[in-house]
Amino acid sequence: MREQFQKELDGVSTTLVQMAGLVRVAMDNATTALLTADLTLAEKVIADDTIIDEIQHELDARTINLIARQSPVASDLRTLITSLRMSADLERMGDLAHHIAKSARMRYPATAVPPELSLTIEEMGRVCSKIIEKVSTIIEKRDADRALEVEKDDDEIDALHRKIIQTLLDPTWKHGIETAIDMTLLGRYYERCADHAVSIARRVYFLVTGSYTKN
Amino acid sequence: MREQFQKELDGVSTTLVQMAGLVRVAMDNATTALLTADLTLAEKVIADDTIIDEIQHELDARTINLIARQSPVASDLRTLITSLRMSADLERMGDLAHHIAKSARMRYPATAVPPELSLTIEEMGRVCSKIIEKVSTIIEKRDADRALEVEKDDDEIDALHRKIIQTLLDPTWKHGIETAIDMTLLGRYYERCADHAVSIARRVYFLVTGSYTKN
Repeated sequence: MREQFQKELDGVSTTLVQMAGLVRVAMDNATTALLTADLTLAEKVIADDTIIDEIQHELDARTINLIARQSPVASDLRTLITSLRMSADLERMGDLAHHIAKSARMRYPATAVPPELSLTIEEMGRVCSKIIEKVSTIIEKRDADRALEVEKDDDEIDALHRKIIQTLLDPTWKHGIETAIDMTLLGRYYERCADHAVSIARRVYFLVTGSYTKN
Repeated sequence: MREQFQKELDGVSTTLVQMAGLVRVAMDNATTALLTADLTLAEKVIADDTIIDEIQHELDARTINLIARQSPVASDLRTLITSLRMSADLERMGDLAHHIAKSARMRYPATAVPPELSLTIEEMGRVCSKIIEKVSTIIEKRDADRALEVEKDDDEIDALHRKIIQTLLDPTWKHGIETAIDMTLLGRYYERCADHAVSIARRVYFLVTGSYTKN
């Protein structure tokens, strides 16, 4: 019985890793669609978001069913409750990729990002992708050391976000209010995506060590 | 034993209602601080956010403990899992009030909101407050009919949000990029607060009726 339960617990973790993989692809594609005004890719991210949502629904139903059938206590129960929270974080990260893709679609055939910000956005996308990959490993290996690293990665995202705002406020900014609004929201989407990744890393850290990360 | 369990279930609901009350006060104060450049009130919202966070921690620990001790199944288990999700929504709504208050503090002694948008922001604050009050009743009375109303209230928020963006894009806009960035983010904070309220309403609707609201 314990063996079967352990198998099901592992299954929950495997699905979370699978979700993280899809979120990473969505975020990578959304960034590419945004920077290259690729409408087909933007549409794909928008359409594929329902796949992430469906996996979350299935996973949560399975997790709740597992709690009901097995009445776990202590660390098993905490693991399952934490899984529900991590699936919610991942689902929301998928939504944010979806928002970025919608921004790309809205400005097509133009690119939403002006030339002086495209490197910064590319970098935000790259760091975000790195964080999501790390989070995937953290979930899979329950790796507390790597969970601590994510806080530092998030500082990179915050610095890039500040850089966007500085660029918008520079007197030489010549792309007007509409592009400034787009860029404000895009910066926020990447930042929020990284925040959710930090949440996941903190949850795993707590599960493994029993203490909170300093922040 | 069932009687004791029911009492504890009711206790969880009471704490959620209490959280909603604090979130509503925070949102009301944040809006007032924003519109009147009231630094003391802004600081109060910022400081009091930890109270909401602490109540959430205590409530979640209590809820998980209840699941571990009582091994509930079916509707009791669903109610407790839903409580964990609602407390996360409410905690996040508190964060958004905190963000609004920080925006007020950052621009002090100036007001962050220019005169032509102060009525729109006031209205967003009013509708948000109404929604949070409704959500509080929905949790308390498990009122599915009222849960449906929240979707319509959210349409009001979306319309006000569009009005902000239109104002920013109007050729007569004379407050520059920095104020446009502030207003873009503020609009987003109110909108996200209402989105979380809609989530809570949908969760209660599903608990009570067993079906999803149409959207």
